[in-house]
Amino acid sequence: MESFNVTVQVEVTFRDVDAMGHANNAVYLTWFECGRIGYWKAMRGDDADYVKVPFVLARTEIDFLAPTFTGQRLTVGARVTRLGDRSFNMAYRIAREADGVIVAEGSSVQVMYDYTARRSMPMPDEFRATIVRIDGEELLDPGPAASVRD
Amino acid sequence: MESFNVTVQVEVTFRDVDAMGHANNAVYLTWFECGRIGYWKAMRGDDADYVKVPFVLARTEIDFLAPTFTGQRLTVGARVTRLGDRSFNMAYRIAREADGVIVAEGSSVQVMYDYTARRSMPMPDEFRATIVRIDGEELLDPGPAASVRD
Amino acid sequence: MESFNVTVQVEVTFRDVDAMGHANNAVYLTWFECGRIGYWKAMRGDDADYVKVPFVLARTEIDFLAPTFTGQRLTVGARVTRLGDRSFNMAYRIAREADGVIVAEGSSVQVMYDYTARRSMPMPDEFRATIVRIDGEELLDPGPAASVRD
Amino acid sequence: MESFNVTVQVEVTFRDVDAMGHANNAVYLTWFECGRIGYWKAMRGDDADYVKVPFVLARTEIDFLAPTFTGQRLTVGARVTRLGDRSFNMAYRIAREADGVIVAEGSSVQVMYDYTARRSMPMPDEFRATIVRIDGEELLDPGPAASVRD
Repeated sequence: MESFNVTVQVEVTFRDVDAMGHANNAVYLTWFECGRIGYWKAMRGDDADYVKVPFVLARTEIDFLAPTFTGQRLTVGARVTRLGDRSFNMAYRIAREADGVIVAEGSSVQVMYDYTARRSMPMPDEFRATIVRIDGEELLDPGPAASVRD
Repeated sequence: MESFNVTVQVEVTFRDVDAMGHANNAVYLTWFECGRIGYWKAMRGDDADYVKVPFVLARTEIDFLAPTFTGQRLTVGARVTRLGDRSFNMAYRIAREADGVIVAEGSSVQVMYDYTARRSMPMPDEFRATIVRIDGEELLDPGPAASVRD
Repeated sequence: MESFNVTVQVEVTFRDVDAMGHANNAVYLTWFECGRIGYWKAMRGDDADYVKVPFVLARTEIDFLAPTFTGQRLTVGARVTRLGDRSFNMAYRIAREADGVIVAEGSSVQVMYDYTARRSMPMPDEFRATIVRIDGEELLDPGPAASVRD
Repeated sequence: MESFNVTVQVEVTFRDVDAMGHANNAVYLTWFECGRIGYWKAMRGDDADYVKVPFVLARTEIDFLAPTFTGQRLTVGARVTRLGDRSFNMAYRIAREADGVIVAEGSSVQVMYDYTARRSMPMPDEFRATIVRIDGEELLDPGPAASVRD
């Protein structure tokens, strides 16, 4: 988890588990969301209200690497991996707290969105600068390897 | 919470909240369930698997006393309030960790159940004794005030 | 279900089921909620937005009568059983579509609430009249047997 | 939806919606799961128990194309797009029933799994043949363009 400057803890509840006996696949997106909320708090302070984020989720990917079970404590890492003009990418990693085994990895694309005007918008400079303070200046130079552009 | 010998901590996630902006009513039953799981661990040890409980839920009641919001940490208290021949009652209390304000109270009735034979069953003596060790010998003398009998 | 003038259909999804193999107890509150939404539409028309209801949920009770399984289609009946000055009660019944077996019954208490002023309020006359049109004039004379008053 | 031989209907419930006012991102995975269950029934008959599927979910992707709201009825299409030796891919499309607008597309990778032996296994011939009967013989010749192999 050392590549993640923002991490949050979650615990697998009985309700997260389905008839297969392990946490249902949809729950992993809720855990990624917990990671995004942690990131939003890192940007705006612990009282930050996630309802006010200036973006919408456009895409997400998950690799399920190991099943998880009721009562397990997990660490969710979240970081920004690309800053575009009107969107940005995040990466996630979920690991078991007890032994560090990675149970899932994933990513998402967010599009900057003005909820009042109901349309996408350019990324505000201040938003970009705050993310760079958390995840580093290399985000300002994504280079030729960036696979998703906006 | 001093009347509860078993307590667990939960945190309100963004997914717990509905379009009203506070945690959805159904989530409170999941929190009660977290309390029951904590109680089951108090009975059987931290590795106890809740799937193996020898009872089914027959009834539940909830009083919603205050709304709860994403990020709030809550304490869920769970205790047994009645031991019958073939069933038992539990009471729950949910309070905000920050200021102790009670956000919900409730109760449930569980019927002892043999999942292999697929029918209800008498409460095993050892099950009863374990609960008495946690919540006290007064459970052995419910007295004339017990409102639900089996 | 003949005593219910408002009914809605739901289907048990795989995600509704927990590790016990049947629908999780919390899901029944979501089905009651589907019944309340159906009732709200009966009051206000099919485009009625449930977010705008002028009440909050204060209490709910559920009796679990039979387990339910993925793929089963259920009918949820909802009706108003009491109209108070500042609150009202509802009753629910959930039955399997295939054979009519009742799988759960329950009730709830709603308190009229002004979301703008953030406080409870008296029940508007028009609200009361609309419910009477759906569930009958006997609601205007609850009589001495009403067990919950406000 | 004409490219999907298997479709199921779902309805957005109030509980599916989060504080943003539209269905939460995690719910889309539950809808994809409803599509997989529909596919499993197309393979095995309407009484097929999804708990007995011989595979685990290894990966999933979602593109969120339009928000969805309480009460909307959706059609979920599911089809198999690749048959490997030990895994297979599926594609999903979710459209609004009212106007056909596509609200999400996605895909998943499933790995054949023997739940008794607790390890992955080759795809049984009969499993492969059943899928070919549903989604066509071109699945037997994935050709050089297949992007995920096993």
